[in-house]
Parts: sequence; structure tokens; C-alpha cells
Amino acid sequence: MPKLRTIVVPLSLVLACLDAQAAGPAAPAKPRSMQEILDASTPADWRRPAPEDTLYMDLADGHRVVIELAPALAPQHVANVRTFAREGYWNGLSIVRSQDNFVVQWGDPEEDAKKRKPIGSAKAKLPAEFTSRDAALAKGWTRLPDVDGWAPEVGFAAGMPVGRDPKAGTYWMAHCYGAVGAGRNEAADSSDATELYVVTGQSPRQLDRNMSMVGRVVQGMEWLSTIPRGTGPLGFFEKPEQRVAIRSIRLASDVPAAERTEVELLRTDSPLFAELVEARRNRRDAFYKVQAGHIDLCNVPLPVRDAKR
Amino acid sequence: MPKLRTIVVPLSLVLACLDAQAAGPAAPAKPRSMQEILDASTPADWRRPAPEDTLYMDLADGHRVVIELAPALAPQHVANVRTFAREGYWNGLSIVRSQDNFVVQWGDPEEDAKKRKPIGSAKAKLPAEFTSRDAALAKGWTRLPDVDGWAPEVGFAAGMPVGRDPKAGTYWMAHCYGAVGAGRNEAADSSDATELYVVTGQSPRQLDRNMSMVGRVVQGMEWLSTIPRGTGPLGFFEKPEQRVAIRSIRLASDVPAAERTEVELLRTDSPLFAELVEARRNRRDAFYKVQAGHIDLCNVPLPVRDAKR
Repeated sequence: MPKLRTIVVPLSLVLACLDAQAAGPAAPAKPRSMQEILDASTPADWRRPAPEDTLYMDLADGHRVVIELAPALAPQHVANVRTFAREGYWNGLSIVRSQDNFVVQWGDPEEDAKKRKPIGSAKAKLPAEFTSRDAALAKGWTRLPDVDGWAPEVGFAAGMPVGRDPKAGTYWMAHCYGAVGAGRNEAADSSDATELYVVTGQSPRQLDRNMSMVGRVVQGMEWLSTIPRGTGPLGFFEKPEQRVAIRSIRLASDVPAAERTEVELLRTDSPLFAELVEARRNRRDAFYKVQAGHIDLCNVPLPVRDAKR
Repeated sequence: MPKLRTIVVPLSLVLACLDAQAAGPAAPAKPRSMQEILDASTPADWRRPAPEDTLYMDLADGHRVVIELAPALAPQHVANVRTFAREGYWNGLSIVRSQDNFVVQWGDPEEDAKKRKPIGSAKAKLPAEFTSRDAALAKGWTRLPDVDGWAPEVGFAAGMPVGRDPKAGTYWMAHCYGAVGAGRNEAADSSDATELYVVTGQSPRQLDRNMSMVGRVVQGMEWLSTIPRGTGPLGFFEKPEQRVAIRSIRLASDVPAAERTEVELLRTDSPLFAELVEARRNRRDAFYKVQAGHIDLCNVPLPVRDAKR
């Protein structure tokens, strides 16, 4: 009889890993599982996102979504996001769209330009920032060894899943689960970062290189992904009362220490991360009868842990 | 200023398509959009799933999830599923697991074999049915032209997204959003189809060729994807009251006509479907500044419509 706790990792294996953790990291005589690799990690394998690159979205129901910004990928959009957060632009606004297997989106639902919330000291006009040549991206670049149909190369830079064109020297955010981008109209330069969206479904990578991307959700995706779907066109809520109220969106650097959510992210440019990727390319535990010998960019786990654990 | 209704398709375009629909299909002088292609479809481009291959999961809150079974991919598992549905095995049981960006799962939460619900006239022991050589799959096979890292070839057979090994002559269900599989223990042949799971996140295709798959959700995914996530290991609910009650799971063929949900699915082996795939490989509308020239198997839309529209 199948037990319930078994689809991907049998519970017995989870418990065995906890035992191994208690006894210290396992010797790497055979390929290690992801859990064993994480258990063997050292503080140098982890990083804390800079407080000025960390956004807290506090929903009215008390749940918090933590976003790491990616200024190297879209510096002017991220600058606007920081300004909006500092000046409380989104406080009291709401999530206005939830489209199944696609995105949630928030911002000012007012479509009449004259009635929209003033954008304060943010820039009203931004250039399209679909790709980037920022040197910081090249510095931390870690290529995934596998084929990808959407980009010449894929991997990680600035802790984000990205595509890369080695000839052009450009990088861009991949639309993986949790990616955060700026909504726009038809014109490439029509986004001002007042309206942000988060991918909640199968990676819509046809949007890669078509949008200015500002970061990714690193904690709290479950509060966005479970929002009831809107029944209007494109998943917009038809009635104002269906919207999900946002208490505030703030930069961690503006939040008192006691109210911060301190997280650590596994570095993506370390030998340990490369070992983790390989452990996921070929699952070695007995549950798997066929190993894939492959992983898609958006299937690579990017571990997050409580910094105060 | 960005309008809200614009991330992927500007509302104006949606309205334009509705206008086009009203005026009859557009001439195919230039590549048509998905909507234009669907508007130009004929009845022969659509099919109705057989009632004995259609499963209705009616949740206690009144919402219905419609699943099309894939007997050609896992005949013995599907036979058990039909028996369970006919004999009311799942009626009164519940969804016991919801793991973010992965799966929901239902079945009998009782782990003590002696206390589990009797399986009636279903078979207690099934073989692993991870791949299939059923001739019906070869007959309807439509290959996707793009590279895939998980399988030698990918495409559609029996209306399902599948992988194919041309040398071995085998087909298998791809773990795309909405795919339905049978949970198991470590042994390959330890599933009996009492416990089924549905993919609700980024396609976990490392499970391809590792699970016996019984079909896919064709309508009502939003009732599964928005279930609050379980906080126990692997997303299991920690408290019985967190489970989502299932009123019944029945075969459409056992449901009175007045209570049926009659759907039509776009055929995947027609020239029209090939045109639709191409329209999604290269988005031609003005919103897209870079065309992907590619699509992943799990990004291909499989249109469904109300047969009584």
C-alpha cells in the first residue's frame, strides 16, 4: 500500500537526513543528496541580501512576502521601486490580478491617468531595461551545464536565474516561479515600476527579454500563489472587494531591526552550489528509477534559510 | 502610464480580437494570433473526451475539477481509477497535501494498512506503468519542433503532453501543470491508484518515466492550485480540519446528463493545432519585442471550451 508521504521523498528518507544532520555531515564517498549538501554547508556558502535590496510586502492579513531586488539587471526600475517603497506608494493599494498558472500583479487600479496616485519623487519615464551588461553579473556568473531552448546560455548571476548571450555580453532575468517584473503597455519603455507582477505558474519564458525585471520572491510565495483567481479578463478581479489589500511595501533598510525577516540565501557561485545542482540533475535516492541527467533553469532550487535559526 | 490590463496582452488587443470574432475569422494573410486561430477553427478541430475517460472531482464546496484519463499511457492504473470512481472509493475522502510550486494529492490519510478504506473490486497490485508502447499513441503523435532537455522527443499523443523515445518506441506523460499521477512508495510497482496527485507548479519533469500517470486536469485547475499550502513535511496538512473534503469523484458516464460538464478539447493532431503552436513559438503581436523562436512542451496551451456554448 502506498503511504501518503511518499511522492517525491519518502518520509523515512527525510527522517534519515535529520539523523545525518544530528550526527554531522555525511562523508562524500557517494553522491550526496540536496539535504546532505545543505547540512555540510559552511557560513561562507550563504549570503544575506543587502537591506536596501530587500523588499517586504506585508499583506493586510499579516503575511509577509520577501523580495530580493536585482539592481544589476534593471537599475533604473529598481531605483524607482526603492523610491516607491520609501515613500509608501503601494501602502493601502492592493493585488488586483491573479491569473491561474501565470501571474499575480499589484498597483493602482485606477486607469484614468489624472486620478492615479501621485508617484512622488520617482521618475515618470524609464528606459526599457530588458537586458543588462552590468559587470557584477559577469563576475558572479555560474553557467548551468544543460541545454535551454529559450537562451543561448542559462545560469545564475547576482543570485538570480538568468539567460545570457555570450556574443552580445548581455544577461536577463528568466521568468521562473517567483520572478518579479514591471508591467507595461505595448511600448517597450512604458513601464515605470508602479505595477509589479510575480510569476505564479509554469515559467512563461516567452516574456524573457521583453520585460524589465526587478527581482525575485525569496520567501512567502505561498501567500501569492494561493490567492483566488480573478474572473475578469487576464485574471483581473471584477469587484474591488476581491482585491487583496497591501498594508505596506517597505525596504528592509527602512524597517526597525525587530520587525525584519532576516534570511540567508545559498550562494549560487560556489562549488557547493554546483554539487547541489548536480544532485538535482541526477537524483540518486532509491525513489528515482530513471535519472534525468538534466535540469531546467527554473527547476533549480535556490535555498533560503532563517538567519536567526 | 502603464495600464493595468497589459502584462501580456493589452486589453485593446483582446477587444480587437472580440471584434474580429464578431466579424468572422481574419484572413490569414499574416500569421494569426492564437485567438484568431481558435476563432477560425471548425468542429472537426475539436473532440469530446469519452465519458468513460472523464472524471469529475466534486469538492465539498461545490467546485468541480474535470480530468481526462489517459488509458493508453497506463491502462491498468486507469482501470483501477475507473473502478474507484464507480464504487465511490474517494467519496468523503479529502485532499491531504498541498505543496507550494509542486503538487496537491488526495486519498485515504490512514497509514495503518489494516484501517485503510477497502479498495473494493480494484486490483490491489499493479505493475509500474511508467512508459507505454500503445499503438494509439503512435497514431496520434504530433511532435513539437523544439529541443527538450528531458526527453529525446516531446509532443502530444492522446491529447496529452508526452515524451517519446523513438528508438525504444515508448511514450510517457510529461509532468506539466495539471498532470495527474499515482503516488507510490520506493518500489516502482507500489502504486495502486488510490492516491493521486496533480502538478500545481513548475513542471517537475524529473519525475517523468518514474511515475504511473493516469491523465490530466482539463478544467478547474484553479480550485486545486489555490488550496492553502500544508505546513507539514512535503506540504501535508498537519491537522485533519485543514484537509479539503471531496464530495465525490465519478466517471462522467455514471453521471446523469443534466449534471455533466460537457467540454471540448482542441485536437492536438491537426494543422490548426500546429499553427497554434507556431503562433506561441513566435508571438507576433506588437507587445513582444523579442520572439522566442521556441516553446517548452509545458507552455503549449491546450484549449478547452464549453461544448454547450
